[in-house]
Amino acid sequence: MTAGTAEGGLEVDLAPGRVEAFSDAVIAIAATLLVLELRPPEGEEGVWHALREQAPSLAAYAVSFLTMLIFWVNHHALFHAVRRVSRPMLFVNGLLLLGVSGISYATEVLGHALESGHDDRSAAVLYALVLGFTAAAFTGLWLCLAARPDLLVEPARPRRVAALRRSLIGPALYGLAALVALVAAPASLALDAAVALYFVGLPRHLRRPPPGAPRAG
Amino acid sequence: MTAGTAEGGLEVDLAPGRVEAFSDAVIAIAATLLVLELRPPEGEEGVWHALREQAPSLAAYAVSFLTMLIFWVNHHALFHAVRRVSRPMLFVNGLLLLGVSGISYATEVLGHALESGHDDRSAAVLYALVLGFTAAAFTGLWLCLAARPDLLVEPARPRRVAALRRSLIGPALYGLAALVALVAAPASLALDAAVALYFVGLPRHLRRPPPGAPRAG
Amino acid sequence: MTAGTAEGGLEVDLAPGRVEAFSDAVIAIAATLLVLELRPPEGEEGVWHALREQAPSLAAYAVSFLTMLIFWVNHHALFHAVRRVSRPMLFVNGLLLLGVSGISYATEVLGHALESGHDDRSAAVLYALVLGFTAAAFTGLWLCLAARPDLLVEPARPRRVAALRRSLIGPALYGLAALVALVAAPASLALDAAVALYFVGLPRHLRRPPPGAPRAG
Amino acid sequence: MTAGTAEGGLEVDLAPGRVEAFSDAVIAIAATLLVLELRPPEGEEGVWHALREQAPSLAAYAVSFLTMLIFWVNHHALFHAVRRVSRPMLFVNGLLLLGVSGISYATEVLGHALESGHDDRSAAVLYALVLGFTAAAFTGLWLCLAARPDLLVEPARPRRVAALRRSLIGPALYGLAALVALVAAPASLALDAAVALYFVGLPRHLRRPPPGAPRAG
Repeated sequence: MTAGTAEGGLEVDLAPGRVEAFSDAVIAIAATLLVLELRPPEGEEGVWHALREQAPSLAAYAVSFLTMLIFWVNHHALFHAVRRVSRPMLFVNGLLLLGVSGISYATEVLGHALESGHDDRSAAVLYALVLGFTAAAFTGLWLCLAARPDLLVEPARPRRVAALRRSLIGPALYGLAALVALVAAPASLALDAAVALYFVGLPRHLRRPPPGAPRAG
Repeated sequence: MTAGTAEGGLEVDLAPGRVEAFSDAVIAIAATLLVLELRPPEGEEGVWHALREQAPSLAAYAVSFLTMLIFWVNHHALFHAVRRVSRPMLFVNGLLLLGVSGISYATEVLGHALESGHDDRSAAVLYALVLGFTAAAFTGLWLCLAARPDLLVEPARPRRVAALRRSLIGPALYGLAALVALVAAPASLALDAAVALYFVGLPRHLRRPPPGAPRAG
Repeated sequence: MTAGTAEGGLEVDLAPGRVEAFSDAVIAIAATLLVLELRPPEGEEGVWHALREQAPSLAAYAVSFLTMLIFWVNHHALFHAVRRVSRPMLFVNGLLLLGVSGISYATEVLGHALESGHDDRSAAVLYALVLGFTAAAFTGLWLCLAARPDLLVEPARPRRVAALRRSLIGPALYGLAALVALVAAPASLALDAAVALYFVGLPRHLRRPPPGAPRAG
Repeated sequence: MTAGTAEGGLEVDLAPGRVEAFSDAVIAIAATLLVLELRPPEGEEGVWHALREQAPSLAAYAVSFLTMLIFWVNHHALFHAVRRVSRPMLFVNGLLLLGVSGISYATEVLGHALESGHDDRSAAVLYALVLGFTAAAFTGLWLCLAARPDLLVEPARPRRVAALRRSLIGPALYGLAALVALVAAPASLALDAAVALYFVGLPRHLRRPPPGAPRAG
């Protein structure tokens, strides 16, 4: 756990170990709880028939699981470049985790609404907004790091503005998905899935070059 | 994991690593389970209408999530200053975790009561008492450390009495919130939120000065 | 994480780090899920009235939380003395975790039965048997270690038989609690609580003496 | 946490620590959530009678818990041989975790269907397919490692093809179990249990020989 020893007077900043562990736990739990929303078939209902009927919930479940996985992978990559965690970062990270746990709720609402066909566009707006809130918290982490480059490992510092800029893509696209949801809920969910797939690609600016590499820009 | 090797004969004391990991897990789970209490809209009910109706539950949810986050941040900070964990500390920490997991239940009770308007003041009393119990367990950890300064890292020792004194603010304010709840439940919840915001500030006495700093008082 | 490097040809044995982390997670989750069984008051029912009515569930909840906490503390202490984990130990540990997760179910059954007064003695038998199964898995871990002292850290080896013997107290007392349950459920629950309190005491044979101590008996 | 320092230019590969921790958490949560599907006896129903009636759910629960435990043990063993984690591995691992969390749902469906005797063969097909999907993701991890032996620790490299071949047994046998399920659900569940028991045995090719061993083939 290497309880962060203070370095260079930055005594109020903490080592990232426990923040990572706590975030891992929350994301892992939220991702696993998603499955609780799926209901087994009831009474005389057949298994395949129930699955077909729950197809929208299953789709929302898959998009949410994938999205949380991507959030986790990129959270992993971000903290990989972090040397110390400032106290504001702890709270912005808390908002990110609040967003992640809210995805469970928004997924359930969206799944129900898509199945019943009732008010599904509002549900898709809510879903996109919760994802956008979470992505915005991610941007918030990069804002903290852009303002305090000393929190980053040396080679990641020159790339922090590029990272901040790229992190804006998330909230922007989820905002767009919220607008699309006003017209058609399934299209909005498809856009949400596309955003997740976009972020599967490695954020180039996060790469930590090998020690001794000539330049890190 | 560094299974604590015994130092200086304090063989019954353990390294804090696994206690931190277990506490992280319980707090992360309790925080994430909060969302299970929110129910998706049913039948013909619209999404926004349902959210408006659940506004009190959402408010209680947000206050509880924030409070658990603060407990976690300060738990992090406390154990940052701890060198070894005594067996009594393990059990006091267990009471703290019991309190944290109880917050889930109290949140659900409070959310329901605020929504229905039935017996909401009793629910707010219960909520404040559970928060107060948890905060008192925090004070209990500081009592253990005040009695056994050798459990702390060197620079944190002179500040242990200040830390103990500050930790009394939690139970005191939550006790006040329980009294306020006898009059008005929303005011009590607002006070609970204010306590959390107060503890966002860094506890000055927990700061670990840089190695080689002249004095740590 | 220190993925255990092989030592002395014991290549099939693993470092205890990840086993501890996995066990921590399961016990933390099982302990936190207990709270899901408590139900908020419904309809016109007052908060205090509901708590009074749920008092047996709350008592079962408290005993189970305390018992899981003790299991965790002693699991911590046991693995503190372990150097490598054999493959059989992984599976015995899995049975222990199965037992711990079963405590959630048994707690819910017992709480319901005590509240309704219906078939509460059978429920208390079930509860004591699940606790006894878990405690027996603990004994199983010591059996593995007694047979393979090389898995223990040096100073813990001479005490392994004492540890094995002491670990038999758990299954024995829970067996007694199952018998008592045939007569009176509350008395059996009280005995279960007493067993937990008994194990709060430090198991003397688990203490790891300071390096360089003259004798470790 | 040892945030993986880049080695030899493989800058986009990560140290396995956090992947292990995240996977541990998801598997631990999924295994522990299984118990939520068991329901306490209701009304006048006796405890033992309820347990007898839930026997199929209990059997499915036990098979799922055991299977998840085996997945975890072998996940542990696989990552024990891994030096760096490539980005594709992160996503294949994500599919594995999606499969593991899906086991909870399939278990609930199977338990219900076996109890009611309604459509139990379809439920057993679904169950075997979900297990097969998870096992196939395991094969996917070995495919990633077979293509990039540099991700493995030195001594594990020559055995990677043997490991890949062995990992095909899982999907193959679960496919067979899905076919058996078309005829008889209990026989299929028994086969699923047999697969788990088969994988209790140590995968020989995963063993990491002691440093300095003459050959590692």
